[in-house]
Amino acid sequence: MKPQQLNWQFVLVRPRNPLNIGAAARALANFGLMEMVVVAPFEPTWKEARTSAVGAEAVMAKARVAPKLVDVIGDATVVIGTTTGARRNLDRELVPLPDLAAELRRGRARGRAALLFGSEKTGLGNEDFSHCHALVRIPTASDCPSMNLGQAVAVCAYELARAGLVTVKQPISPPGRFEPATSHSLEHLYKRAQHVLEMSGYFQPLSRQAMLLKVRRLLLDLKLTPSGARILGAILAQVEWKLEQATHAGHE
Amino acid sequence: MKPQQLNWQFVLVRPRNPLNIGAAARALANFGLMEMVVVAPFEPTWKEARTSAVGAEAVMAKARVAPKLVDVIGDATVVIGTTTGARRNLDRELVPLPDLAAELRRGRARGRAALLFGSEKTGLGNEDFSHCHALVRIPTASDCPSMNLGQAVAVCAYELARAGLVTVKQPISPPGRFEPATSHSLEHLYKRAQHVLEMSGYFQPLSRQAMLLKVRRLLLDLKLTPSGARILGAILAQVEWKLEQATHAGHE
Repeated sequence: MKPQQLNWQFVLVRPRNPLNIGAAARALANFGLMEMVVVAPFEPTWKEARTSAVGAEAVMAKARVAPKLVDVIGDATVVIGTTTGARRNLDRELVPLPDLAAELRRGRARGRAALLFGSEKTGLGNEDFSHCHALVRIPTASDCPSMNLGQAVAVCAYELARAGLVTVKQPISPPGRFEPATSHSLEHLYKRAQHVLEMSGYFQPLSRQAMLLKVRRLLLDLKLTPSGARILGAILAQVEWKLEQATHAGHE
Repeated sequence: MKPQQLNWQFVLVRPRNPLNIGAAARALANFGLMEMVVVAPFEPTWKEARTSAVGAEAVMAKARVAPKLVDVIGDATVVIGTTTGARRNLDRELVPLPDLAAELRRGRARGRAALLFGSEKTGLGNEDFSHCHALVRIPTASDCPSMNLGQAVAVCAYELARAGLVTVKQPISPPGRFEPATSHSLEHLYKRAQHVLEMSGYFQPLSRQAMLLKVRRLLLDLKLTPSGARILGAILAQVEWKLEQATHAGHE
């Protein structure tokens, strides 16, 4: 199913630590998300704290600030609050974060989505929740449910990317997939190994044939790349040469 | 498919900032992971930096430290390195993080798994990679591939939990799923709304029947909970009462 394309803005509500705001910006930049909004930050000078926002200069520069949540979610068609789920009196359905994409697709969500994160100390409040169409919970452990703000933002941004809710521009030439060595080069290695083992006196006459089959199987199981096969071939050739030298020396 | 149960240890190789070590510990605790190993930390006093390890005291206390990577991965059956994939000369297959679980299941991995994270500045080096059975890449954007260390750990821990590679002990009584109001209570609301609208002079004689159907449909679409239905019922009752008062006053 083709995912609905939503425009996401991440909204930090009353964040206390400017380093966490910068870290949130960095996580957004990591996953190609550009829109961060900061509501009523505790430190008015948060934009200057850039040490944690490495690589996220554009996100920081574009970040909006507003005194109240209602000022920033006006054009959102979907407002989603994040919560640890530790409070018992929420009386709302909590969508596990891994299910969010399916939930949004089921509801045919489109347009602008706002994802809200509460302050480090208290999370989102009931006033904030009253604006939310849905509440999402990162499935953390019951004995340590509360996440660091920047980490919670990173996990949510990753999940949106993983589930195809945002498109992340990947590297143009990603390193190639595994390329296996050819049967020909493995057979060449096998012959060389056989010769080395013969010269070393490895084989017992009765089990020789069975051992040879095991060696061939072992070479296959090594899942060698062409480069790995070359290195192993060169090693065997060297050992072969040395053994031949030793054999000739012994015969002289 | 029942996932293979692996015992995970997260290994921070040459981390520089103690705050990131604490943040990594917190992320592990969030997802029920207990084993952190620190290899050759830049700051020998990293264990004292606990401000970022809120809730992760047990992980920090249990954390091991070692001078070299080989000292800590000896009993691992799977060693996985993390990388941004930005370096071009890796010459290895990179498993996208969302595919890691499938990859491990395909390989029937079991036993002890070590997940390695490099230093904030340089990531893992070729020496570290040479110990790895697989390399994993968090699918970050090409123009900002490098993640904060604590956030990278958080995203990986979340992914292990999401994919069922670790079992996270969830809250015992999670807040209940959405409970819809009964048809009976919606019909009650409908009757009350109808009465209020009649008294307000909302209906035109010709379209009255069609409007009533729309009102019933609207009440259904509201997806009210029992509590929401009660609140709306009480509001309508109040308006009804006020309108009746006004009507009687007008008639007197």
